[in-house]
Amino acid sequence: MITSPHNEKLKLIRKLKARKHRERSGLFVAEGEDLVEAAEAAGAQAEFVLLAGRDVQPELLDGASELGSGTRVIGVYRERWAEPGGDLQVHLHEVGDPGNIGTVIRTAHALADGPVVLGPGCADPYSSKAVRASMGSVFARPPARAELGVLDGFKLGLDARAAVDLREVELDPPVVLCLGAEREGLPAGLGVDATARIAMRPDAPNSLNVAAAAAVGLYEVANRMARRD
Amino acid sequence: MITSPHNEKLKLIRKLKARKHRERSGLFVAEGEDLVEAAEAAGAQAEFVLLAGRDVQPELLDGASELGSGTRVIGVYRERWAEPGGDLQVHLHEVGDPGNIGTVIRTAHALADGPVVLGPGCADPYSSKAVRASMGSVFARPPARAELGVLDGFKLGLDARAAVDLREVELDPPVVLCLGAEREGLPAGLGVDATARIAMRPDAPNSLNVAAAAAVGLYEVANRMARRD
Repeated sequence: MITSPHNEKLKLIRKLKARKHRERSGLFVAEGEDLVEAAEAAGAQAEFVLLAGRDVQPELLDGASELGSGTRVIGVYRERWAEPGGDLQVHLHEVGDPGNIGTVIRTAHALADGPVVLGPGCADPYSSKAVRASMGSVFARPPARAELGVLDGFKLGLDARAAVDLREVELDPPVVLCLGAEREGLPAGLGVDATARIAMRPDAPNSLNVAAAAAVGLYEVANRMARRD
Repeated sequence: MITSPHNEKLKLIRKLKARKHRERSGLFVAEGEDLVEAAEAAGAQAEFVLLAGRDVQPELLDGASELGSGTRVIGVYRERWAEPGGDLQVHLHEVGDPGNIGTVIRTAHALADGPVVLGPGCADPYSSKAVRASMGSVFARPPARAELGVLDGFKLGLDARAAVDLREVELDPPVVLCLGAEREGLPAGLGVDATARIAMRPDAPNSLNVAAAAAVGLYEVANRMARRD
């Protein structure tokens, strides 16, 4: 039973709040029973797991937690990175919000066979906010890292300003669905093969949330590809 | 120029962080130029707007802000509540995350003609996190509050455990798309006319994020209703 806040495991958990330390060590933290169970279900081996009251005094675990008081369990895991591939994958460019990154990983796990591929300027999918938003899908379907240029497939950019409706675009699988920052959209010169927009009402906002747009895009493309089979 | 943290306007902004004070006063806060511009574009009259350096010392505005240092502008607005209605509206039941509430309001603004109707146990759409996630859509398309039972229309519940695929369900407009908490789903006895699921892969997670599910549901139902016309 850990009884000191200076314990090495607790110190590591606190350090892993910083992206720098996650990148150096290749480790990350998952808090809470749901995430620790998701890791087990996906066969991801923990470096260690601390259970409040069994392995560590509860108030010490609370002190190391990002969620604060009442944390029951924290696990430390090794980051895993997939290779790009599959009939349908997502590429994100400069998506800076970790909650959106995690939500897209969860949605792609539900609707696509390929990973979420993170391009430049994206938030860390292994930050605690992203891991929570993924609801554990980072364990079952680890993200990949690559520039769009090296990916194989038909690169379809989703952009609210595109002239072509997503429902009208010709799909040629495998498909890479590309999304960028909500405000800037996809930069010219990124190297997509086509861009399309999600049809919106005349009085609509300028754009959708990137995770909402990814969900609609994955749903539409996955449906169209299933009908081709 | 406000030079004291005890100024009444700054005190009001700080108080409005609490739901209790928002509900008592019927007022809420929007921080940042994007939201204040969205309010103007939607014709929402501010009670007052404080611009850093013009109306208030910048560090005092930072001190009243939820976002912290560097806040350029904060506006205080009167909450507006729509009446339920339209050919397609969303009903949320016990959706407790304010970011999800705001994102659904933004997506419904893009894809549906009716409001987002908040049932029991939902987060406050006028919390600062929800207002930010809505990207200002709360101004253009204020939410409504009602129990599902009083709404008119075909009430279609989205539930990952439903037997019927969303693409197969017979739609009879007007449609109310009902979503619940991600974990619990929709309770029995809520009074939906049908439930449907979004088709997911065999190895999929148990559910989608509620805002991602709402985006897919709105997209599918809006498309189907447009094809009927």
